[in-house]
Amino acid sequence: MSLQPVLIAGEWRKPKDSTGTFSMINPATKSALPESYPVSTKDEILQALTAGKKAADELRTIPPEKIENFLEVFADNIEKRTDELVNLTNLETALPKEPRLKSVELPRTTNQLRQAGAAARDRSWCIAVMDTKNNIHSMFGPLGGPVVVMGPNNFPFAFNSAAGGDFAAAIAAGNPVIAKANTSHAGATKIFAEAAFEAVKESGLPLATVQLIYRTKPDVGYMLVSHPLVGATGFTGGRQSGLRLKEAADKAGKPIYLEMSSVNPVFILPGALKERLQDIAMELYSSCSLGAGQFCTNPGLVILKKDENSETFINSLVKIFKENEPGTLLSAAGPKNIADAIQVLTKAGAEIVAGGKDAEGPGYAFLNTLLKVSGENFLKNPYELQTEAFGTVSLIVVADNINQMAEIASALEGNLTGGLYTNSKGEDDEDYNKVESILRLKVGRILNDKMPTGVAVVPSMNHGGPYPATGHPGFTAVGIPRSMLRFAALHCYDNVRPHRLPVELHDKNPTGKMWRYIDGQWSQNDVKR
Amino acid sequence: MSLQPVLIAGEWRKPKDSTGTFSMINPATKSALPESYPVSTKDEILQALTAGKKAADELRTIPPEKIENFLEVFADNIEKRTDELVNLTNLETALPKEPRLKSVELPRTTNQLRQAGAAARDRSWCIAVMDTKNNIHSMFGPLGGPVVVMGPNNFPFAFNSAAGGDFAAAIAAGNPVIAKANTSHAGATKIFAEAAFEAVKESGLPLATVQLIYRTKPDVGYMLVSHPLVGATGFTGGRQSGLRLKEAADKAGKPIYLEMSSVNPVFILPGALKERLQDIAMELYSSCSLGAGQFCTNPGLVILKKDENSETFINSLVKIFKENEPGTLLSAAGPKNIADAIQVLTKAGAEIVAGGKDAEGPGYAFLNTLLKVSGENFLKNPYELQTEAFGTVSLIVVADNINQMAEIASALEGNLTGGLYTNSKGEDDEDYNKVESILRLKVGRILNDKMPTGVAVVPSMNHGGPYPATGHPGFTAVGIPRSMLRFAALHCYDNVRPHRLPVELHDKNPTGKMWRYIDGQWSQNDVKR
Repeated sequence: MSLQPVLIAGEWRKPKDSTGTFSMINPATKSALPESYPVSTKDEILQALTAGKKAADELRTIPPEKIENFLEVFADNIEKRTDELVNLTNLETALPKEPRLKSVELPRTTNQLRQAGAAARDRSWCIAVMDTKNNIHSMFGPLGGPVVVMGPNNFPFAFNSAAGGDFAAAIAAGNPVIAKANTSHAGATKIFAEAAFEAVKESGLPLATVQLIYRTKPDVGYMLVSHPLVGATGFTGGRQSGLRLKEAADKAGKPIYLEMSSVNPVFILPGALKERLQDIAMELYSSCSLGAGQFCTNPGLVILKKDENSETFINSLVKIFKENEPGTLLSAAGPKNIADAIQVLTKAGAEIVAGGKDAEGPGYAFLNTLLKVSGENFLKNPYELQTEAFGTVSLIVVADNINQMAEIASALEGNLTGGLYTNSKGEDDEDYNKVESILRLKVGRILNDKMPTGVAVVPSMNHGGPYPATGHPGFTAVGIPRSMLRFAALHCYDNVRPHRLPVELHDKNPTGKMWRYIDGQWSQNDVKR
Repeated sequence: MSLQPVLIAGEWRKPKDSTGTFSMINPATKSALPESYPVSTKDEILQALTAGKKAADELRTIPPEKIENFLEVFADNIEKRTDELVNLTNLETALPKEPRLKSVELPRTTNQLRQAGAAARDRSWCIAVMDTKNNIHSMFGPLGGPVVVMGPNNFPFAFNSAAGGDFAAAIAAGNPVIAKANTSHAGATKIFAEAAFEAVKESGLPLATVQLIYRTKPDVGYMLVSHPLVGATGFTGGRQSGLRLKEAADKAGKPIYLEMSSVNPVFILPGALKERLQDIAMELYSSCSLGAGQFCTNPGLVILKKDENSETFINSLVKIFKENEPGTLLSAAGPKNIADAIQVLTKAGAEIVAGGKDAEGPGYAFLNTLLKVSGENFLKNPYELQTEAFGTVSLIVVADNINQMAEIASALEGNLTGGLYTNSKGEDDEDYNKVESILRLKVGRILNDKMPTGVAVVPSMNHGGPYPATGHPGFTAVGIPRSMLRFAALHCYDNVRPHRLPVELHDKNPTGKMWRYIDGQWSQNDVKR
C-alpha cells in the first residue's frame, strides 16, 4: 500500500504524524484498491487554515483575470488527464466510464470551471450597487478566509471537493479552497488537486489557493468548519453528518451551506396518466435509476390519485423496475443504507411491490425497488415515509382524491425539487393549482412534465431548497454566478475616496461590460458626472 | 393599571390566560407608567403562528400593488398619530421629542415603509433570472410562513417590531409579520400595530398580516423562532439574547437574521490629527453621544498612533466628554450594563480618563466616559477590550506605530462598520492601505473621514457585517430592496408552462419597468421571441 500525500501550504506532503489511514474498495468487485490515504491530524488542519488565510489575503490583491486564467488552465489540465481520471474513478465508484464519467460528468465539470472563470472576469457577479449622490457603494467580495469544500460521494467530478461546483464558485469569488476529499473517491480527488495545483503554479496564484486533505476524525472536522480562520464551508452529503457540521459551524457563527437530502416528490395528476401512462413510467424509471439511483434529485416519492389508471401505472412500473438490472452502488454502505431506509418505510406502512433486497453479483448492488402506500397511511406517518433511500428506490403514494394529494404536499419536508405531471390539454389545471400552491413553498425547483434529475448549469437554476434539503432557502449550489454568493460577504464603502475604491466601483466600468446597478438603473456604462 | 391587548389572528384580545404581566418605567423620572402588558403563553404563540401561516398563504395570491397600498396607508396612519407616538415614546424611552423622535426618526420610518411599498410594486427586488432557451426561470418569493420581528430598544420607530426596517422588508417581500414588541417601548409598538392593523383592513390584506405580542418567557421565544410554521426571524438586540435565539432557530433549520453588537472601530491616522484634530474630536463626541450613545453604530473603539498630537487629541476629547451632560438612558438596565462593561474594560487594562460612573439627576444616566489603553495592552486582551458599552463610552487605543495599528485591526471581531480618518492631502495613504486591507474583512461598511452613526436608507447601504456583529456576512438590515432578500426563498421554475408562471416571469414585463436578467442581460423589456 502506498500512502498518498496531502497538499498543504503549497507542498505535497507525506504526513509524518497522521492519526490513521484508510483505503478504498472497488464497489464493482469488492476488492481492495492499492492506495492508502492519511487521516489528517488537528495540527495539519491548523497548518492548512493558516496557509489558507494567508492565501486569502494575497488573492484579494490579484486581478480576477488571473483567477479566470487559473480556472481555464485547470479545466485544460483536467481534459489532458481524462483517461486517467475516468479509469481511476470507475475503479473507485463503479460509475460507468461511458457515457457517465467521460462524456457527461467530465465535460460538465470543465464547463463549470470555465463558466466560473468567465464570471470572475466579468465581475457582474459581485452585484455592484452605486449611489453616486450619497457616495455610498457596495458589492460582494471574498470572505477573507479559505472555503472548506466537502463534496458528496455521488458526483466524483461535477461536485468534487477539488474541482466541482462549490470549488469553482468559491475560487471564482476570490477565496482559496481547502478540499476535503470524499473518501469514496480519494484518488480521483487527488488527481484533480494535482491538476489544480499545476494550474495554480502556472497562473501565479498563491500556492495555498488549493489544498487537499482526505479525512479527519469527526471532532477535527468540527474544528475545521468552526475555526476563526475559515471563511465558510460547502458540504454536500448525508443529513446526519451535515447536521453535525452545521451545529459546529453555527455555534461559531461561520457560514455553512449544506445540501443534505431530498426525496423530490413527483405528483402525477390523473389527466397525465390517462394521456401518457407508459411514457411517464419509463421516464420515472430512467430518472430514478440514473447513477444507480444515487442522485440528490432522484424521484423517491411519487404521488398518484387512485383511479382506473393508477393500478396499471404501478403494474407497469413494477415490470420495468423488475426487468432492469440494478446499477452498482458506490460502496458497501450503499446496500446497507438502502435496506435500512426500506425497513423504516415498511415499518411505517409501505409495502414492497418490487425488489427490496440486495442484488446478487460481484459488486455492491440492491434490486430496483418500488414501494407503495395509501395516501391515508402516508398521512399517518409522513415523517418516516419521507426517509430517503439512496438508490433506485421510489415510494408510490396512492391518494384517494385531489384534496388528499394536497394534504400530502402539506406534509412534505423541504426538498430540492417538486414535480407535477399534467394533461397537455389543460384538464388537470385546477388540480395543479391546488397542489402547486402548497408544493411551491416546500421545494427549490418546481418542474412540469419532467423528472428532477438533470440539473442544468445555467444562471436561473436553483439547486437548493428549504431545510432540511439545504440549510438556507435563499442559496443555490448550482448556477453561476448565483452560487458564488454563498462564498462572499457584502462590502459597503461609505464616503470612501474614489482612488481607494475597488475598481468595480470606479466611475469607469472596469471591463466595459460589467453590469452595475447605478442610481437605480442596471447599466454597463461608466458613471457619468 | 390597564392590561393592554395583544393582536392575534385579526383581533385585539385581552389575554384570558397570560403567564404574567409587565409594565414600564419612565427612564427620565424613574416613575412607573400606568399601562401593563401581558406575557404571552405558548398557546397564544401557537395561535399567532397558525393565523400567520394562513395569512402567508393568502398573501401569495395578492398582487403587490395591494401590499404597496398597505404600506402607504400605514405610513399615512403613522403620520396622523405623530404626536401621540412622539409623546408616549418620549415617556417610554426618554428620547427627545425634537429633533430625534418627531423630525428624524419618524420621517425615516415612514420613508422606509414607502420605499418598501415602492419596491414591492416595482418587483425588481425578486431578481428574476430568465433562461428562455432552457425554459428555466427563477426569482425570490416569500417564505410561506410569518416572519417574527424582534426590534431593539434604541430605535423605537425606525427599527420598531411593528413598523421598522425588518417589518417593512418582510411585508414588502410578501410575508406576514408577528411583531414581538421591545419591552422598553411596548406602548409605542401597540400604536404602530394599531395603525398597521387599520391599514391592513383598509387595503384588504389578510387580517393576520400583522400580529402583535409584547413578551414571552424565554423558552416560548425559542419555540417561536424555531417553529415549523415560522418563515424566519429578524432580531436586533444584545448578543446574549441573540445567540440563544440563534441556537434555537439554527437547530430547527429556520433562518434567523441577527444584529447583535458592534464597537465600530475608528482608525484616526496621524495626518488627519495633524490637520483637523479639533474637528475630529467634536465629530467623535457628537457621534458617540447620539441617542445617549445607544446606537448600534456608536464609535466605541478609537485607534490612534502615539505622536505629538495624540495626547492633545485625547485631552480635547476628555474636555468635551466632561463638559457635556449625558443623555438619559433607555432603562434602568442602561447604567448598570455600562458599568458592567466598563468593569470588564478596566479589568482588562483600560484606564478611565473621563466619566466612569452614574450621573446624578432624576433619570437613568451615566457620565460620558472615555477610556484609554496602549496598543500593547490592547493586544494582550483584545477580546475583553472589545466589550461593548452601550452608551456614550469610547475606548481610545494608543498604538506605538502603524504596524501595531494593523495588528489591532487583525485582532478585531466582526463589526458593522470600520472607519478611517486620513490626511486630505494623501499623506496617510500608505498607512491607510495597510489598515484598510485588514479592516475590510472585519466590517460590513468602511467609512472615510466620517463617523459611523447615520445609516442612510439607500440601496447601496450595508447595515450588516461579519459575526458576531450579525449572524451572516451577506445580508443587510438596512437598504431596500436588498434587506428584503433576508425574508425570501429562491424559487425556480423548470419547464413550467408559461400560463402557470408567476407574472414576474411572463414574457411580458409585468410593470413595463421591472428589471429582469434575461438570457444574460439586465433588461426592462418584454421577452422577445
